[in-house]
Amino acid sequence: MIRIHGMADSGNCYKPRLLMAKLGRPFAHVETNSRDGSTRTPAYLAKNANGKVPLLETEDGRFLAESNAILLYLAEGTAYLPADPFDRALVCQWLFFEQYSHEPYVAVRRSLILYPERAAQATPERMASLLEAGDKALGVMEAQLGKTPFLAGETLTIADIALYAYTQDAGVAGYDMERYPHVVAWLARVAADPGHVPLAWTPGG
Amino acid sequence: MIRIHGMADSGNCYKPRLLMAKLGRPFAHVETNSRDGSTRTPAYLAKNANGKVPLLETEDGRFLAESNAILLYLAEGTAYLPADPFDRALVCQWLFFEQYSHEPYVAVRRSLILYPERAAQATPERMASLLEAGDKALGVMEAQLGKTPFLAGETLTIADIALYAYTQDAGVAGYDMERYPHVVAWLARVAADPGHVPLAWTPGG
Repeated sequence: MIRIHGMADSGNCYKPRLLMAKLGRPFAHVETNSRDGSTRTPAYLAKNANGKVPLLETEDGRFLAESNAILLYLAEGTAYLPADPFDRALVCQWLFFEQYSHEPYVAVRRSLILYPERAAQATPERMASLLEAGDKALGVMEAQLGKTPFLAGETLTIADIALYAYTQDAGVAGYDMERYPHVVAWLARVAADPGHVPLAWTPGG
Repeated sequence: MIRIHGMADSGNCYKPRLLMAKLGRPFAHVETNSRDGSTRTPAYLAKNANGKVPLLETEDGRFLAESNAILLYLAEGTAYLPADPFDRALVCQWLFFEQYSHEPYVAVRRSLILYPERAAQATPERMASLLEAGDKALGVMEAQLGKTPFLAGETLTIADIALYAYTQDAGVAGYDMERYPHVVAWLARVAADPGHVPLAWTPGG
């Protein structure tokens, strides 16, 4: 069985969990907390030199890092990744957008608010800067979702799964979601899609 | 003919140019400078709502953003992107690593040094922080390149093209490359690979 090393409360780790739920595929969760040093041990760094979660472990013991690379691997041949080369490339465009233009702002601002040990880093200047950059990313999504029901077109793909993970908590992160009605409607569409599971989760529960 | 909107001196724009050179495929370069406002005009934002370069324009007028999504699209079916699902996923892993853990530090530090209009942002604290995070990324590459000649294994893929773009300028960006002998040897291997072209370039020249 596939094993996924990750944290129960991480949006990046939620992405492959949500896809596996939609695919109806079982997997073993290996709780690995980046906030308690578990991703910096020699044993873990031998599996992923970049010391991050999630990390996929195949049945034959190979390792694959980066949440969105894991999504691409697991979605291959399924309805969540188009076969047409250009449509597939558009999905990848949104996956890179998520990691470069969205996650470093929306997810980081969320973590600075949610985790007390990070509070000292939440200076007014940094929070304002994260707000501005995250609003820009949400604006890019709003523009697209005014044209198509899902980010890469007519059907739900891993682009939606990747961007749902932290956008659904953008309100918690301090973004004014009333400015993004198309994004809010899309969040509801993704949550209503068959096989949905929430981020809040108890491993083994 | 494919058109690529981009800047002659950008590493992100260099990536698709290097791949197209290796593939022997002609394309039209459309100079679009993000530093003079050309990527923030209404006309450009209608093509790419995220206002970034490079941007690929297909022969039938569709647009694809994100340098590494462009690489994946152009490399499909070529020797630069493996057909095996896991090998392909490993290439994607490095592409996401590049955009999340490498480019925001190595490329940004390079730009703060090279472009006088950004000098005011190059505070000692920021430069030290960028140095530390970029060194971590170079260390991850060093660990892999001590095991395999190219990042995703035995052959050169778009993972190498993506990471070559800014790593070849890591010395300019202030990183001590003597600490990374495997990376330095890999830079030479990539530069010696057939079809190589340098970043320094005059459009139409």
